[in-house]
Amino acid sequence: MYEIIKYPVDSLKAYVVSFFKALDVPEIDARIAADVLVSADLRGIPSHGVIRLHTYYGSRLRKKLIDPESPISVIQESPATLALDGGNGLGQVVAYRAMSRCIEMADKAGLAVTTVRNSNHFGIAGYFAMMALSEDMIGISLTNSQALVAPTFGLHPLLGTNPIAAAVPAGSEHPYVLDMATSIVPIGRVTVHQKSGQSIPAGWGISSEGVLTEHPEEILQGGALLPLGGPAELRGYKGYGLSLLVDLLCGVLAGAAFSTGVGNPNNERNADVGHFFAAIKIANFRTVEAFKADMDAYIQLLKSAKKLPGEDRIYIHGEKEFEHAKKCLKEGIPLMKEIVDGLKAAGDEIGLPFDIQPAG
Amino acid sequence: MYEIIKYPVDSLKAYVVSFFKALDVPEIDARIAADVLVSADLRGIPSHGVIRLHTYYGSRLRKKLIDPESPISVIQESPATLALDGGNGLGQVVAYRAMSRCIEMADKAGLAVTTVRNSNHFGIAGYFAMMALSEDMIGISLTNSQALVAPTFGLHPLLGTNPIAAAVPAGSEHPYVLDMATSIVPIGRVTVHQKSGQSIPAGWGISSEGVLTEHPEEILQGGALLPLGGPAELRGYKGYGLSLLVDLLCGVLAGAAFSTGVGNPNNERNADVGHFFAAIKIANFRTVEAFKADMDAYIQLLKSAKKLPGEDRIYIHGEKEFEHAKKCLKEGIPLMKEIVDGLKAAGDEIGLPFDIQPAG
Repeated sequence: MYEIIKYPVDSLKAYVVSFFKALDVPEIDARIAADVLVSADLRGIPSHGVIRLHTYYGSRLRKKLIDPESPISVIQESPATLALDGGNGLGQVVAYRAMSRCIEMADKAGLAVTTVRNSNHFGIAGYFAMMALSEDMIGISLTNSQALVAPTFGLHPLLGTNPIAAAVPAGSEHPYVLDMATSIVPIGRVTVHQKSGQSIPAGWGISSEGVLTEHPEEILQGGALLPLGGPAELRGYKGYGLSLLVDLLCGVLAGAAFSTGVGNPNNERNADVGHFFAAIKIANFRTVEAFKADMDAYIQLLKSAKKLPGEDRIYIHGEKEFEHAKKCLKEGIPLMKEIVDGLKAAGDEIGLPFDIQPAG
Repeated sequence: MYEIIKYPVDSLKAYVVSFFKALDVPEIDARIAADVLVSADLRGIPSHGVIRLHTYYGSRLRKKLIDPESPISVIQESPATLALDGGNGLGQVVAYRAMSRCIEMADKAGLAVTTVRNSNHFGIAGYFAMMALSEDMIGISLTNSQALVAPTFGLHPLLGTNPIAAAVPAGSEHPYVLDMATSIVPIGRVTVHQKSGQSIPAGWGISSEGVLTEHPEEILQGGALLPLGGPAELRGYKGYGLSLLVDLLCGVLAGAAFSTGVGNPNNERNADVGHFFAAIKIANFRTVEAFKADMDAYIQLLKSAKKLPGEDRIYIHGEKEFEHAKKCLKEGIPLMKEIVDGLKAAGDEIGLPFDIQPAG
């Protein structure tokens, strides 16, 4: 079991803002990036939270592998479409701006898509999809990522874990928020099993010999993750197809890198990550009231349905995360001591001690 | 092994046109519906082809459960968005018209979405996504369907096999065409195993007691299919999330029925199926030439990559189907004798004998 320390949301976020500012990120952008990063911890997705503050972002900003100014430029635009160049900026900042523009366009056109090339890892995809919710829109957020997943019948990783996020507003119920890697699990899940000495379920990935493995290190050392679905008889080519589709939209359509061309955050070169965002204005199809009434009815139908023996809940996507965030706002964000140690080391390195008080 | 009879594509299609015409479908609509239906057989998806001519369409047209005139009406429209009422028409005809309008709108706006309520089963989702290809657009086609799939931790079917289809043009390579049920397998696959007395892989579905079963009849008699991913440890809640997303777009956004409200083709009431179509014009994001060059490079990268031991090919989605269609155009469409017998019985019932000559 890990040792856990809880920190108040506001002070953790304030520290992350200072951290980005210390690395020449403008204050307003630092606030955006901090909000995205801390939201991952808040929503119970610590693999994408402050654990990556230094490794994915800080170290790259210091090495000038990410441009702290995030100088976004427009490649091509029309009332419902926008193609952006992210200027090798911070992925969170670039994605936030891209989705903001997408929502503005959709407010007028009823619908909009923004693509982004030349960006970086942007954190949790769901954050940007959720930006549409308050505008009574459906939000979609996709990104490609470094190759970790083998295509069906392939031996080596050629596809990213390329997530699909979609957010759909409801009325009195929590909104529906899907935020899923198109692999069975993200690589961080395998790392956690390795660190804790646990085996993994057969199906998550293959060894460098192409054999289904229960040993996490065999995936991490020259092996590959498998796409959602897993082996052929359980239809892994569907997960492969979804992962490829995400890359066709984020890599090929956006004009960014794709497949093995997408940079790993550990590489000493620009990542050229690509994103794809869409916003759909509900009022262009039916009244928002009728839509939300149906959403609530649907969610209640699912939640009140008969459960499998031994199970007491059917979850709606995003529900666990809303509950986790509520708890964290009250009790503080739980961080493993290992992550806190990493933050302390990173803070010392840039002369900004991580000395915030744990939640009381 | 089944007895197979091959029929020339043109004469099979001509028969289906006559069949629909005999049931009061206007000639132009009969041609559309026949092309969609025969395309399924041509592309190697016989479960969605002429096997359903009578059961899904003919019998419902005769009982006035489908309106042969397909009187589509506009609920709401803007340059990039269109909400249609399918008038309880033939799903294929309604979907063809809806996607045609979507493509026309996207040609001007760079992007468009059309939703449809009050429609019927429309055949293969991929057909409508592929309509975008010749216009150098990316096409997306979704539909909801009668509840056959249990949500994660649920005992009963509450979701359709709700397919996702996406078509992306390439240059010299075949286009990418994904056309997948969001369940592990469609129900027809289970029926085929039952008819041939085979067991099924554990994971495809559960019995009425909620237990993973290898007996097809336990799924068919009060059980349920499982969403893509299967059990929780292999992340079936992602397939559940995708299936639900399709229904939120096709059912809730379109204002059609959703979940258990979607009619089964065997029910004596309107099905109120909902669809969602999107078209994205590539030229609004980058040049079509650059896009297609990258598509070809990506496809070649995947195809030339190292394979798993014992495998000699990595497939691109849609590739097998293009090869199957090419073969059928030369040799005729293979139909199981059981399907031919069904066509003969249906033809006799409506006074239009199925007497076309098999391919020579």
